[in-house]
Amino acid sequence: MRLSQFYLPLLKETPADAQIASHRLMLRAGMIRQQGAGIYAWLPLGFRVLKKIEQIVREEQDRAGGVEMLMPTIQQAELWRESGRYDAYGKEMLRIKDRGDREMLFGPTNEEMITEIFRAGVRSYKGLPKLLYHIQWKFRDEIRPRFGVMRGREFLMKDAYSFDLDEPAARHSYNRMFAAYLRTFSRMGLTAIPMRADTGPIGGDLSHEFIVLADTGESEVFCDRRLLDLEVPSASTDFSADLQPIVDQFTTYYAATDEMHDADDYESRVDAENQLSARGIEVGHIFFFGEKYSRPMNAAVAGPDGKDIVVQMGSYGIGVSRLLGAIIEANHDDNGCKWPMPVAPFHAGLINLKPGDAEADRACEQLYSALTQADVEVLYDETAGRPGEKFARMDLIGLPLQITVGPRGLADGKVEVKRRSDNTKEEVDLEAAPNWICDAVREGLSHP
Amino acid sequence: MRLSQFYLPLLKETPADAQIASHRLMLRAGMIRQQGAGIYAWLPLGFRVLKKIEQIVREEQDRAGGVEMLMPTIQQAELWRESGRYDAYGKEMLRIKDRGDREMLFGPTNEEMITEIFRAGVRSYKGLPKLLYHIQWKFRDEIRPRFGVMRGREFLMKDAYSFDLDEPAARHSYNRMFAAYLRTFSRMGLTAIPMRADTGPIGGDLSHEFIVLADTGESEVFCDRRLLDLEVPSASTDFSADLQPIVDQFTTYYAATDEMHDADDYESRVDAENQLSARGIEVGHIFFFGEKYSRPMNAAVAGPDGKDIVVQMGSYGIGVSRLLGAIIEANHDDNGCKWPMPVAPFHAGLINLKPGDAEADRACEQLYSALTQADVEVLYDETAGRPGEKFARMDLIGLPLQITVGPRGLADGKVEVKRRSDNTKEEVDLEAAPNWICDAVREGLSHP
Repeated sequence: MRLSQFYLPLLKETPADAQIASHRLMLRAGMIRQQGAGIYAWLPLGFRVLKKIEQIVREEQDRAGGVEMLMPTIQQAELWRESGRYDAYGKEMLRIKDRGDREMLFGPTNEEMITEIFRAGVRSYKGLPKLLYHIQWKFRDEIRPRFGVMRGREFLMKDAYSFDLDEPAARHSYNRMFAAYLRTFSRMGLTAIPMRADTGPIGGDLSHEFIVLADTGESEVFCDRRLLDLEVPSASTDFSADLQPIVDQFTTYYAATDEMHDADDYESRVDAENQLSARGIEVGHIFFFGEKYSRPMNAAVAGPDGKDIVVQMGSYGIGVSRLLGAIIEANHDDNGCKWPMPVAPFHAGLINLKPGDAEADRACEQLYSALTQADVEVLYDETAGRPGEKFARMDLIGLPLQITVGPRGLADGKVEVKRRSDNTKEEVDLEAAPNWICDAVREGLSHP
Repeated sequence: MRLSQFYLPLLKETPADAQIASHRLMLRAGMIRQQGAGIYAWLPLGFRVLKKIEQIVREEQDRAGGVEMLMPTIQQAELWRESGRYDAYGKEMLRIKDRGDREMLFGPTNEEMITEIFRAGVRSYKGLPKLLYHIQWKFRDEIRPRFGVMRGREFLMKDAYSFDLDEPAARHSYNRMFAAYLRTFSRMGLTAIPMRADTGPIGGDLSHEFIVLADTGESEVFCDRRLLDLEVPSASTDFSADLQPIVDQFTTYYAATDEMHDADDYESRVDAENQLSARGIEVGHIFFFGEKYSRPMNAAVAGPDGKDIVVQMGSYGIGVSRLLGAIIEANHDDNGCKWPMPVAPFHAGLINLKPGDAEADRACEQLYSALTQADVEVLYDETAGRPGEKFARMDLIGLPLQITVGPRGLADGKVEVKRRSDNTKEEVDLEAAPNWICDAVREGLSHP
């Protein structure tokens, strides 16, 4: 993509109401633009990251056996009356009347709707288990939206729902999502710790939040430091096999959000040197709630003996748009973002220091073309402008590799490559540059 | 994908209120489920088609130079007051108040929002041209939603917006979208005819609708039959070059919707044997409207001489979710859908006629694994059930290729492959089947 064709409106000044780094950087780097309290337009740079995060989430849901679908944003109030949540949900639910005065709402979550869809389609135990998910925009009318996409009102969420015949089977579905979540966040370069958590308005007994540690997180958390060093399940994990050992490995160590924290238990189970009390960002939340929705909504299947069995359900959320904020909180410096390769808006930036100079133009066009053909995503800055301005822009948007091409280097047959992760620079032969970059991209994609 | 894992709730009876084939088939084949008047959940089978259509739209927008972003569904009323459309838009706009009693709306279109985003980011003529698009759910509170996804209330639309310095440049942007649309619909196996059209609530002077001919279409159209035989622009089209010759080729012949129809002109320009008056489905609509939004909303850039120039705008829509209906209307028989390969939910269905039979199971598993590894998307029916039921299901969901494996054929080392497009059948050696299928898929993808 040529920068002149792209739309990258940087902000010179930091917006006064942006209190945390990710919010500031997303505004300054032209990733989002506010369209109302807690409502954002995703400008092209931010959109590209959002799509990459969404795709990783999708791939790991599919790997774990999930089947994708898509529920609408607008729901009927009557459906929520069946579960009893229409009145219970409170003011966070955005309630709407259409031109026919029918009561509707912008979905804050989809337990009711998926239960209605399931009960209409599955009548026999032979149709179980089912694990369905969608990635859709939701709306929660937060009283105080803040921190940019971290606590917005319109936000993108992956929510999955499991339907099983009995509790052991439901537990296996829960474990599949548990393992899938570990892989999902790890692929984005995040260390997310599963913690016992309160179930809130979703309900149920068993629940884990997946928490990324960050000073700016809204949750206070307590955990065993050794959790940070556990290996996540590999890509070859068999999700139909017993996953309890994986779950046990991660739940052996103490980890709890403040609502579930038990100070005595913490002190007795965790040595002082391994105690980690910190702040964290919730990026995922999984629930097993059994019959909470299936019983009032009558989602039952005929069992082997013909008798009805109410199905056991769970739900599993990932805050897709929030993850952008979490990833920036974990990967930035004073100059801007530092995207891990798998979620970077482009793999590399190409800076032409002297557009109009025949040699610089030719070298850049050749590099751009070679890299693009090798499926390296390049943002090519061919615009006029001072070098300092160009460097600052590339640092701000934080592409993992920056390739700088100018007459001085070219005289020696060299270009400069900077790794944004540690800001180290290297001279590379112009001829060797395409392969060098391809290798670096491949390396970055495999080890975020 | 194994059928037992998938979620495919077929309907035995045809819903009484489904008046047209696509609506009936989408419900019967478990592609959608209604969640309110004109509001549908996309079940896994329908979702897969929706994603393929979306991806073709995206690729052709990108090829034409579009840059993708994403605007939120919820908009502020004040923005629409700037253009004067808040009161003008009428009851089709879904108006909402949040908990703070602020006036908002579920966006029916995005001219105002994109103009606000553009004016905040581009201040100089050097930032032009810009061609931005997004693919997002919209809501229009139709008084009489009908025909399933063809005239729903919540629907998925691609809308692009162009910003140019003067009218010739804006005309070039218009032509880019014109040519991109021809390619887009053709890749889905549709013949869409551009027709002069009324501009309605979007406004402007120059506008074309892209119409797919179908008896169940809502528009009455009049055109020259020779339009059906024109070749669409190739994949190597240079979208930065002059595209007027392409547009001229398609606009030389008479083609108009009934609002723009001029009977005398039609009679004089089209020979009797080439006159085609028919019904059609609008799948795309492009508009050039100059300063209609940029002037009241003050979207101007500094020109070369420093003086402000109000930008020239156009907008370009494709009904992504509606396209499913249009494709089915053009491709079905009494037994079900007949998906063109590029938009098929799976490329092939694999029917195991005798699950539990060791030979049949082994042959199926080998085929399934070989095809999946070759990136052929296979829906593998390994469930118990009568052969007639399995064949009827495959015909209903309309995958382009059906591979049937049973003990009788296997005794001769054969499987049967049926092409759903013309319902012809062929015996293929089991050994040769993977390559045979791969070739057929490749062929189908290149010539929908």
